[in-house]
Amino acid sequence: MTSGESSPIDFRSDTVTRPDKAMRAAMAAAEVGDNVIDTDPTMRRLEERAAAVLGMPAALWTPSGTMANIIALSLHLTRGDRFLAPREAHVLANELGSAAWLAGGMPAPLEHDAGPGRPSAGALRAAIGPADPPYYVLRTTLLCLENTHNAAGGAVTPPDEHAQLVATAKDAGLRVHLDGARLWHAAVALDLPPAALTVGVDTVSACFSKALGAPVGSVLAGGEELIERARRVRQMLGGGVRQGGVLAAACLLALDRIGQLGRDHDNAARLAAGLVDLGWAAVRPETNIVLAEVPDVPTALASLRSMGILALPMGDKVRFVTHRDVPTEAVDEALRRIKAGAE
Amino acid sequence: MTSGESSPIDFRSDTVTRPDKAMRAAMAAAEVGDNVIDTDPTMRRLEERAAAVLGMPAALWTPSGTMANIIALSLHLTRGDRFLAPREAHVLANELGSAAWLAGGMPAPLEHDAGPGRPSAGALRAAIGPADPPYYVLRTTLLCLENTHNAAGGAVTPPDEHAQLVATAKDAGLRVHLDGARLWHAAVALDLPPAALTVGVDTVSACFSKALGAPVGSVLAGGEELIERARRVRQMLGGGVRQGGVLAAACLLALDRIGQLGRDHDNAARLAAGLVDLGWAAVRPETNIVLAEVPDVPTALASLRSMGILALPMGDKVRFVTHRDVPTEAVDEALRRIKAGAE
Amino acid sequence: MTSGESSPIDFRSDTVTRPDKAMRAAMAAAEVGDNVIDTDPTMRRLEERAAAVLGMPAALWTPSGTMANIIALSLHLTRGDRFLAPREAHVLANELGSAAWLAGGMPAPLEHDAGPGRPSAGALRAAIGPADPPYYVLRTTLLCLENTHNAAGGAVTPPDEHAQLVATAKDAGLRVHLDGARLWHAAVALDLPPAALTVGVDTVSACFSKALGAPVGSVLAGGEELIERARRVRQMLGGGVRQGGVLAAACLLALDRIGQLGRDHDNAARLAAGLVDLGWAAVRPETNIVLAEVPDVPTALASLRSMGILALPMGDKVRFVTHRDVPTEAVDEALRRIKAGAE
Amino acid sequence: MTSGESSPIDFRSDTVTRPDKAMRAAMAAAEVGDNVIDTDPTMRRLEERAAAVLGMPAALWTPSGTMANIIALSLHLTRGDRFLAPREAHVLANELGSAAWLAGGMPAPLEHDAGPGRPSAGALRAAIGPADPPYYVLRTTLLCLENTHNAAGGAVTPPDEHAQLVATAKDAGLRVHLDGARLWHAAVALDLPPAALTVGVDTVSACFSKALGAPVGSVLAGGEELIERARRVRQMLGGGVRQGGVLAAACLLALDRIGQLGRDHDNAARLAAGLVDLGWAAVRPETNIVLAEVPDVPTALASLRSMGILALPMGDKVRFVTHRDVPTEAVDEALRRIKAGAE
Repeated sequence: MTSGESSPIDFRSDTVTRPDKAMRAAMAAAEVGDNVIDTDPTMRRLEERAAAVLGMPAALWTPSGTMANIIALSLHLTRGDRFLAPREAHVLANELGSAAWLAGGMPAPLEHDAGPGRPSAGALRAAIGPADPPYYVLRTTLLCLENTHNAAGGAVTPPDEHAQLVATAKDAGLRVHLDGARLWHAAVALDLPPAALTVGVDTVSACFSKALGAPVGSVLAGGEELIERARRVRQMLGGGVRQGGVLAAACLLALDRIGQLGRDHDNAARLAAGLVDLGWAAVRPETNIVLAEVPDVPTALASLRSMGILALPMGDKVRFVTHRDVPTEAVDEALRRIKAGAE
Repeated sequence: MTSGESSPIDFRSDTVTRPDKAMRAAMAAAEVGDNVIDTDPTMRRLEERAAAVLGMPAALWTPSGTMANIIALSLHLTRGDRFLAPREAHVLANELGSAAWLAGGMPAPLEHDAGPGRPSAGALRAAIGPADPPYYVLRTTLLCLENTHNAAGGAVTPPDEHAQLVATAKDAGLRVHLDGARLWHAAVALDLPPAALTVGVDTVSACFSKALGAPVGSVLAGGEELIERARRVRQMLGGGVRQGGVLAAACLLALDRIGQLGRDHDNAARLAAGLVDLGWAAVRPETNIVLAEVPDVPTALASLRSMGILALPMGDKVRFVTHRDVPTEAVDEALRRIKAGAE
Repeated sequence: MTSGESSPIDFRSDTVTRPDKAMRAAMAAAEVGDNVIDTDPTMRRLEERAAAVLGMPAALWTPSGTMANIIALSLHLTRGDRFLAPREAHVLANELGSAAWLAGGMPAPLEHDAGPGRPSAGALRAAIGPADPPYYVLRTTLLCLENTHNAAGGAVTPPDEHAQLVATAKDAGLRVHLDGARLWHAAVALDLPPAALTVGVDTVSACFSKALGAPVGSVLAGGEELIERARRVRQMLGGGVRQGGVLAAACLLALDRIGQLGRDHDNAARLAAGLVDLGWAAVRPETNIVLAEVPDVPTALASLRSMGILALPMGDKVRFVTHRDVPTEAVDEALRRIKAGAE
Repeated sequence: MTSGESSPIDFRSDTVTRPDKAMRAAMAAAEVGDNVIDTDPTMRRLEERAAAVLGMPAALWTPSGTMANIIALSLHLTRGDRFLAPREAHVLANELGSAAWLAGGMPAPLEHDAGPGRPSAGALRAAIGPADPPYYVLRTTLLCLENTHNAAGGAVTPPDEHAQLVATAKDAGLRVHLDGARLWHAAVALDLPPAALTVGVDTVSACFSKALGAPVGSVLAGGEELIERARRVRQMLGGGVRQGGVLAAACLLALDRIGQLGRDHDNAARLAAGLVDLGWAAVRPETNIVLAEVPDVPTALASLRSMGILALPMGDKVRFVTHRDVPTEAVDEALRRIKAGAE
């Protein structure tokens, strides 16, 4: 790993993590069934365990976090409904507008006035609007939270702020969906069980293919009746699969690995510190995402690529994501390459 | 008109203007036909004249400005498309999310960084995003302007700023729709023909039932092929009517009255000045809408109502709209009542 | 009216009827208000009277029958729902697929096995399917009836058959919408009040601009809560109008004229008999629509047009509709022209 | 396998086939990558090979055949479009109305007048309607074929009939989508390469998880530009997965096994003959699906279940599907049990 020609160091996303030998073995050994017309036993084991871990009554596997979020929005929203989400939330910016197309809901962004990725309860209260609007006005019916907040740099919402936001939403009659694509990271950063971060929500999505090595799969958790309806929407979207147990087996193993994410957080802190030492305007990360301001994003990405370092743009910043397939040595090697490239 | 018990002074909206005797006579005398399976001659005369006034090749009558905007969005947007509009634009805030439900488009608000209701070309350019986004990212395909901008207090976008915004949008491959519900007011305020304010847009909507006295009707204008497709969408939405000539006759007369709107602007200025004299935080209006900050909107509205003065909330302000059915004397009477009420 | 050059005899549709002098006078004299932000008094009078005539708790004016039907379908259907309607019903064939686009419902046609335009209760029962389908199967949730059935030649469903269909639907948990665009004709043909034909339905639409001379307007009637929600959907579709009283005044007068439709039925029978005498395969009509089989529809229509007779295609037939603007003498004149043309 | 208590004989669907040892080994060994932000090499190999086998320029993996069909309909249809499909086609009856919800298209069924599952070109021509309809009429823009046709009992459309239907559709300006969930079976029954059955279509879907043992996966094939757009719609629906190579590896192996389907066809014929011998009204199958008329479907299914034989209802019939996990001996055993049960 001494030059750009060697295998690149891949900070593009923690979605690039690959199943390792143990996970592949689990997949190969998985007990399976037809999960559309019947039950796939490994799927059902995963769904039960994921529900428990997330502190919800029931859960449903989905092929992607995007589908888990779409299903939730489709269940929570109908025409004439407005939903609120922190500015640049995944459901606003990264799901190709499925909220509009599929759910018919009108989004409105909340400012991050309480901290990175975190709207305050006051801002939420103001954005919800009056309690009894005239019939010709949009009704705000849903709050979507995101913990950690990706575009804000893996920012963590602590449980007290989460509780205030949920209480404010519930007082106003809103439902709450939590996009927990990286909820595991928030839990590890806070040293809390994931279920401590889902208190009061109606639905929560979480991912097994981000950072944990599972190749395919996310989950939507919520009340039993809601998850039964979610199963139907999943089928409508074409997300009902047959012998999904081969994937669920990997997701189950991923759940065992949540505790290992701390290493990624340490590596992210190490990367950010190293970048700052090299004169970069990098923000000290709360979890596994490092955002760095650069004069010109495409130029910076191209320069990094020439050094064998892969990253992605995030608005007007460069985003580096640490994950299990980037060991500490690779972080150090990346910093060496950047230092060498700058000389 | 000496007390709150008399007929109230109605500043709620210029949509409350009623057809006068001449307009009712024109409606009663209108030549009509079945405008769905055939042609209503008065409708067609109106559409031709409105197209000419708006400087567009073709136009289509609609029952409301909301429908004109919805049809435009439905034609311009498809799933995976993002559209930009100045914060609090009617298409974002006041159309019950039809942009999402009917057009499947994902909205994103533009700040008013160039002035009330006016995003700058630079802010637009930044919001559009990179030219060639990856396939999994929303594509910005439409700019919706609004002139005058209602929620910004009837704010006027001058033609040079309009031109810059349109040029920026077009350079980036966007389409442009102009919500001209009160385009007439902008034209009068600028002393320009309406067509001077539609340069470069793909579609423009305009209203006859706002301020001009026509009971029902708006128009969507654009290219001929686009308007033919709009006719089809109007039918899908249930906006195709039969002997619409009775309404079009009123709309034709409304077009003769655009020049009279200057009086409403004068009255709005008179009202704002009077309110300021009485200690209100009212903004000097550019056209016929006066916004006033008050400590508490519901209290203020109730107090006004007790004096026989009707207004509507606009976010955290009170909105007064002047129009042809509120003569100058009624403005003065309203100020007298407010003064008396404050003593 | 002695040759094809004179004003044509227009059998294309009863939608072509024009407001007469009395109706225009009523429109010109109508009391009006802003029906979006407030109440238009004539609109409300119409809605109350229409609700009473239709035997429903509440009603809502709409600009067209299509919009009334769309709103009903939008309220009754959601994704994953299937609705049943007699083959070639207006909601299936003539509303540009708004049922799919706007309501997301999947249609399935019912055969006319009980008579023209009339499915039997048995066929309905079979089409509904099993009571408790697996989650991955469409659920039938709505029955749409149409009385009279346009494409079946203005065919009347008698009240006992209506009652059986409604009972069958209700037993299976379905909602029922009745497209009553020409419900007045069915009532007149059966010599019953219109309310006798709406027993048990959740919603019914009816038209004032078909046959009765009103230029613009239909109504959706149903339960109070449902109609409040309908008002909101109407606004979303752009069907909320301001001083609609000018149109409602005409609709009120139209309601006074229902009894006059018998003359149109007589004229339709006269036309059909005359056509049969001339060798046409015309069906004896139940109300005001005459369907005639011809060897080639476009040729037949062109030939009629050259004689100054206008009709429309209806599938593989020619459709003649009688209405208040085609007096009996015009029917006789049309038959004379056809006879002359055939010689 | 000598009693109902032993493992049941599962004729419910060929979707129940499970990955065998070789397939699991291929999955465990699959080379993978992040298929959203980059490329999964095994996915791309599968897509290239599937495109070639189907005779199309490009292909896209999807998690299910339903999603492949939905994407195709979403690409081909827009509001105001009508699509035709043989009565009881999967896109009409078995996809929970996604055609309506997601694509906004209005379906119309074609009768099977040329044979089971097979509309004639003449019936298609008649259903398409006139070439240049008025603007207020639905436009027929898509023909969906299904080969083999599931609900018609795995019925095969031969290539000459396919060609006539495609030619008729194309002459009228329609696009053509072929639901080839069991195209492999048609190809084997006809002893033709699958590409011989896709001639002229715009898109074709095919499944790897039906009958071939792959746990998860289907494919949509078509022109390159269309498939690039399909990739985007797949992402919107939440069907974009990360390290999908683990699934694609199984799908690649499934493609090697198409030739083995002949055994399933033989077993279906054996089952049908045996049922007829036992007095059942079973239809001689063209491929691997046996439909049997029974006096009462739920009773028949329950009775079979008590014998350890699983099947599913198909309308008013019982459907038996043969597949690789039901060997010939199991077919014979099922017949023995039914015989014993009837004695």
